Amino acid sequence: MSFAKLDELGRKLEALEHALAILGADEATHMTVGGGEKRAEAMAALAGMLHRQATAPEIADWIEAAGTEPLNEDQQAALREFRRHHANLTCLPSDFVERQTTARMRSEQLWRDLRAKNDWTAFLPSLESVIALAREEAALRADRTGLAPYDALMDQFDPGNRVADITPVFAELKGFLKDFVPEALAVQEERLARSPLKPLSGNYPVERQRELGLAMMTAVGFDLTHGSLAVSHHPFCGGVPSDVRITTRYRTSEFLSALMGVLHETGHALYEQNLPSEWSHWPLGHARGMAVHESQSLFVEKQLGRNPAFWQWALPVVEKHLGEDWSIADILPHVHHVERGLIRVDADEVTYPLHVILRYELEQELISGRLEAADIPEAWNAKMQDYLGLSTSGNFADGPMQDVHWPGGAFGYFPSYTLGAMMAAQQWAALRRDHPSVDEDIAKGHFEAVNEWRRDRIWSQGSRWSTPELLERATGEKLAAHHFTEHLRRRYGKG
Amino acid sequence: MSFAKLDELGRKLEALEHALAILGADEATHMTVGGGEKRAEAMAALAGMLHRQATAPEIADWIEAAGTEPLNEDQQAALREFRRHHANLTCLPSDFVERQTTARMRSEQLWRDLRAKNDWTAFLPSLESVIALAREEAALRADRTGLAPYDALMDQFDPGNRVADITPVFAELKGFLKDFVPEALAVQEERLARSPLKPLSGNYPVERQRELGLAMMTAVGFDLTHGSLAVSHHPFCGGVPSDVRITTRYRTSEFLSALMGVLHETGHALYEQNLPSEWSHWPLGHARGMAVHESQSLFVEKQLGRNPAFWQWALPVVEKHLGEDWSIADILPHVHHVERGLIRVDADEVTYPLHVILRYELEQELISGRLEAADIPEAWNAKMQDYLGLSTSGNFADGPMQDVHWPGGAFGYFPSYTLGAMMAAQQWAALRRDHPSVDEDIAKGHFEAVNEWRRDRIWSQGSRWSTPELLERATGEKLAAHHFTEHLRRRYGKG
Repeated sequence: MSFAKLDELGRKLEALEHALAILGADEATHMTVGGGEKRAEAMAALAGMLHRQATAPEIADWIEAAGTEPLNEDQQAALREFRRHHANLTCLPSDFVERQTTARMRSEQLWRDLRAKNDWTAFLPSLESVIALAREEAALRADRTGLAPYDALMDQFDPGNRVADITPVFAELKGFLKDFVPEALAVQEERLARSPLKPLSGNYPVERQRELGLAMMTAVGFDLTHGSLAVSHHPFCGGVPSDVRITTRYRTSEFLSALMGVLHETGHALYEQNLPSEWSHWPLGHARGMAVHESQSLFVEKQLGRNPAFWQWALPVVEKHLGEDWSIADILPHVHHVERGLIRVDADEVTYPLHVILRYELEQELISGRLEAADIPEAWNAKMQDYLGLSTSGNFADGPMQDVHWPGGAFGYFPSYTLGAMMAAQQWAALRRDHPSVDEDIAKGHFEAVNEWRRDRIWSQGSRWSTPELLERATGEKLAAHHFTEHLRRRYGKG
Repeated sequence: MSFAKLDELGRKLEALEHALAILGADEATHMTVGGGEKRAEAMAALAGMLHRQATAPEIADWIEAAGTEPLNEDQQAALREFRRHHANLTCLPSDFVERQTTARMRSEQLWRDLRAKNDWTAFLPSLESVIALAREEAALRADRTGLAPYDALMDQFDPGNRVADITPVFAELKGFLKDFVPEALAVQEERLARSPLKPLSGNYPVERQRELGLAMMTAVGFDLTHGSLAVSHHPFCGGVPSDVRITTRYRTSEFLSALMGVLHETGHALYEQNLPSEWSHWPLGHARGMAVHESQSLFVEKQLGRNPAFWQWALPVVEKHLGEDWSIADILPHVHHVERGLIRVDADEVTYPLHVILRYELEQELISGRLEAADIPEAWNAKMQDYLGLSTSGNFADGPMQDVHWPGGAFGYFPSYTLGAMMAAQQWAALRRDHPSVDEDIAKGHFEAVNEWRRDRIWSQGSRWSTPELLERATGEKLAAHHFTEHLRRRYGKG
């Protein structure tokens, strides 16, 4: 039975993925500084074993032969994902992968150094070589998949995502935001004029903030028998579904940044913890893709965690742990703060999509060859002026040098962030349609119905459907911008 | 070049060993309870990969061919250890290993349950099957190595250890202890009659005890850039030489047990941290064996950590962290407490060797077939009566069912504990001969000369020499009982 061979292979690959995931989480949380060199060697060797085992020549034959075997529905779905996974791994020749890895590593190393120096000129040649290789990669992936080149890149991160579907939705969102950002800022200004921002600063020991985070994450559904919370320099969600490792970082002068980080990572963790465990050794059992994953983290952080109803329940929990007796009116201006800025990762949910759409537009031009790397700063500045009224002229560090994605060669990834935000809003709208009393539930700290809905429609599905199919099956309609724009209007608009 | 192939193989095996070591340490310290099942699957699969890669058919040819290549002295030593390692891994047929693994796992599981119930009768059949397989294993190893069967078992744990060398030394030690245990107990009784034991109990928060442990371990030489201290149910030293993970457990009512645990594990850690890093991917770069490893932990715990000179330096450190102003006279009766007991792991350094010698004697009889499993309780009781004046009649849980070693199939391991204690005493004697002022150094908290001596003679040697050769080169003489008996006489005798 060829399917049985794929099944057995899956268990071996799962073991190596398990090791890499735990070693990676350990590196960021518990590893001592002197352990880094050997850890890097070990992880590179394990990743090499994983790649060799996952691309062994006989696997293509097993996949072919399994297609003629009598398989049940789950196995048929599993086979589709085995095939997709295998195609993604094998469509690039190994000498190409080596050239690309070398170019990406050099470009990333240069970027770390040169971003701090705002030195675009010295950085440009390495970026040019990464972009040239990305064009080559897109062509190779397009050949294998029959997709357009940029679609073929996006398809790795979110199967089924297509420019033809995304561009009109992003265009609608962009049109909305160009008017709405000024409106939201005006609303905020007016409100602050009426009642100035009350600082939430104080002295909040790490141990108390940690207890608060644990209380919130477990209330929202995180299973502490299958995961834990630690500290790292950059918050992340790692580990394996049976043992999900999330992290945050603490500042003792304020509690909100650590807590919102915990909620965001809890959103990722809920997805991982609730994947179908019986498929854990098949690609089918993995989370669907980056946009869906981001929709789950943003659902918890933005749809739940920045919802006034949530804070009705959460404020007494905060008071219990930190001893501060704030009102909803004190908290909301902090969790709903809007600000035009140059840096994507610092952006709020209103302005963030403009940062992403800018990159999405430039990436397509870069991959198609209509834009050259040397012309990025000018194009970037023009779009920042247009979308957010900000200049990055001469400011490369806070312009096209701010993200690691391009030096790292990750083209086609950026749209996932905003697709995730839109999908989260669309899921929230569908959930409210099915459970009109959801705000009241949340105000009482009851998240069971919310999670049951998401478990049923998203988490339990693993990689059974493409990203657009999953969304449509979960919400009853295709991706539509209006759920997200209505969400923003309700939360930030003139009312 | 066949040696180059072995060298490359070594790097792959090192990566898998690294993953297993970190996953193992993580399991005992940071893994959440629900992660255990997948962790066990992953580790079993990785251990299988490690075994398959380390025993691939071509390796025997590489070892053979490398012997004809022009190798430098280090490479020649490396090849000897590659050969030894390979022989240890391949001398058992794989169907035998499978039968043995199954029998051991069943016996260990039964043991966990039945020890608590003191149920020897239900446990016996599974122990019999493990012993039958251990006899078979000893015969297979004897065939391959040309050693006597029990020597072949010991040789896995400490190459070069032979019954013919150990038995006379243990006989001398046993003869000494049968008289000396009563003497030490009488001395203790007399002292306690003069000045009663002052309890060292109080309330010592975990965080303060941890800081105390870190202060002591770093003073003694532990490198915190290549290791860390965590908490686990059973203290251990794990991880990899570049990132050594030691653990302890805390009771807030007293500090001494956690601290002595930290010192013991620090002894193991110093050995690992100071192994020759350029050989880390060769068996040659590993620690020599279990007895040598135990000599390093006992050196720190017993020769340093229970030395009155050590406490001259350590008491102010304890006071700084715990705020208690004890005198040497308060501490020493606790760290030098002697007591006859049934349980090996609870024994002090005076009575411990009798527990080990009892097992060493019974193991040889079991492997040779002169003793059957059914007759163990009677033989055990007779020796306990003879050596320590205690009865285990009907008390199986605190008699032959107390250790995991036999149900786990680890025959030939027990002597390492007492050989380690003797080697530590012999190393201490040699160090004092070379550095007569070592007690004064220690009283000042200066451990550099002690560590320099040990680094030079033991840690830096990796697996270059057999265990007896290593001891002889380090101390200038073969294993001799009198160093240990003199140590005990000085510390516990009539004076």
